[in-house]
Amino acid sequence: MTKKDLLQGYIIAPNPDGVNLTKTVEGLDHFGNTVVSQVIEEKPLTIYLNSQEIVTAMTIGDYPEYLAVGFLTNQGMLDNSNPVKSVDFDEDLSVVIVRTETETSFEEKLKKKTRTSGCAVGTVFGDMMEGLEGLRLPSSNCKVSWLYNLSNEINQTPSLYLAAGAIHGTVICKEHTPLVYMEDVGRHNAVDKVAGWMASNDIDGSDKILYTTGRLTSEMVIKTAQMGIPILVSRSGFTAWGVEIADKVGMTLIGRMRGRRFTCLAGFNRLIWDMNGAGCDEK
Amino acid sequence: MTKKDLLQGYIIAPNPDGVNLTKTVEGLDHFGNTVVSQVIEEKPLTIYLNSQEIVTAMTIGDYPEYLAVGFLTNQGMLDNSNPVKSVDFDEDLSVVIVRTETETSFEEKLKKKTRTSGCAVGTVFGDMMEGLEGLRLPSSNCKVSWLYNLSNEINQTPSLYLAAGAIHGTVICKEHTPLVYMEDVGRHNAVDKVAGWMASNDIDGSDKILYTTGRLTSEMVIKTAQMGIPILVSRSGFTAWGVEIADKVGMTLIGRMRGRRFTCLAGFNRLIWDMNGAGCDEK
Repeated sequence: MTKKDLLQGYIIAPNPDGVNLTKTVEGLDHFGNTVVSQVIEEKPLTIYLNSQEIVTAMTIGDYPEYLAVGFLTNQGMLDNSNPVKSVDFDEDLSVVIVRTETETSFEEKLKKKTRTSGCAVGTVFGDMMEGLEGLRLPSSNCKVSWLYNLSNEINQTPSLYLAAGAIHGTVICKEHTPLVYMEDVGRHNAVDKVAGWMASNDIDGSDKILYTTGRLTSEMVIKTAQMGIPILVSRSGFTAWGVEIADKVGMTLIGRMRGRRFTCLAGFNRLIWDMNGAGCDEK
Repeated sequence: MTKKDLLQGYIIAPNPDGVNLTKTVEGLDHFGNTVVSQVIEEKPLTIYLNSQEIVTAMTIGDYPEYLAVGFLTNQGMLDNSNPVKSVDFDEDLSVVIVRTETETSFEEKLKKKTRTSGCAVGTVFGDMMEGLEGLRLPSSNCKVSWLYNLSNEINQTPSLYLAAGAIHGTVICKEHTPLVYMEDVGRHNAVDKVAGWMASNDIDGSDKILYTTGRLTSEMVIKTAQMGIPILVSRSGFTAWGVEIADKVGMTLIGRMRGRRFTCLAGFNRLIWDMNGAGCDEK
């Protein structure tokens, strides 16, 4: 496929040539020769909800509005009953302010943060599992051929990962087509940016597939469930708690997706085996 | 090298057969055949400093005492002027309590956490750069042959990474010998466990090398600087802020270390080129 073909289905694709996303640094290679290296930018972005400072995230800095809205949505600080009025990004101050129609209940959540939490895998306020009790993700189907196509296309798409490494990607897909591909230093930021895009454009998760380069930890599974997406795919591996939560909410969890190999550890019922003997021998 | 040879230099090596560190889960492979998969455990551990609850970390669960002492040390909540009196782990409650001779100043730091922070890359209280102003890491040397030997030995050492994937490793080394190799779901936990081992055994960082499987982000560079270790090596890549901080504190920063290739982006002066033409051609 040509680069143009690869980018055709995307609503948002990575921008490896984006200004200020990478920086050129001079160093030495293993021979002691001078090399010029492209490295990922990482800078603080402070997120406000109305007049309350909520968090400072380390991010590459693209799509700050989506990151802010997605972070607050995934933390349960925004919902339909209290719509977002405006999102303002101040580049000089590295601040995003999300304003809602009325005040929110985040004060109580912040109190809980001080008392108990600050999960070492990203920052999680309040009870991590909040809002997941009784949640069952909608039924949907997923052809194995879609998985192969997604993995293949995503891996070939020009990205900061291919240009500089040291970055995670999250892609929201429909059937065999990747739609929005976000990258960031932390995998939680990449997925929050996708969540922000969904919330800002009223996108329904029930017929989508989420692909991530990061591991399938409890945090990733919880965020995906909160986004209403029933299928989560990763090129990386699993944690036991991630599998347990996926089981509980009825999510299809696919990991170690490389070439034409993968392992599915939860939600087998959604898979449609449309590739006869599609395994590694055809790689 | 045999497994026994590989483990000879270690004071603490990974324990891939450790009880409760992995779990066996049944799933499907890409052919739809049943597979049995080993996945990493991930469970909450709550750290107390005296009577104050500080943080809940997601961890594989080994060395909880080192994790607690290392986390608190790297957050600047423990220092020599206020020695640790006892460290108690309650397995049933998943709680570690670190007790010091006298009360500490952490209350003020906790206040700052509420107000500003909770960095998205792990949990960081107060000012991330605190204690780094004016810090210059001690001079030391590092032979390129040591780097090749370390990378080779660490990659071959039996580990949870080799057994189940989805885990990060951090290894503290002296010259060409790996000493303590910790693994955890988050790379910050693995490095905190090494820091806890150092603090608990009065280990000096100035003649050591730290190897990590994770990316060289600002957080990793800051933690390594706080541990007084002047050389940080990773098989993964860099962020621009990581390189900047390494430059500021005089740290040697080596990334993308694979086979006999690497890139050094800061602190070139420590490297001794004892391998003539030692690059990728001898791989």
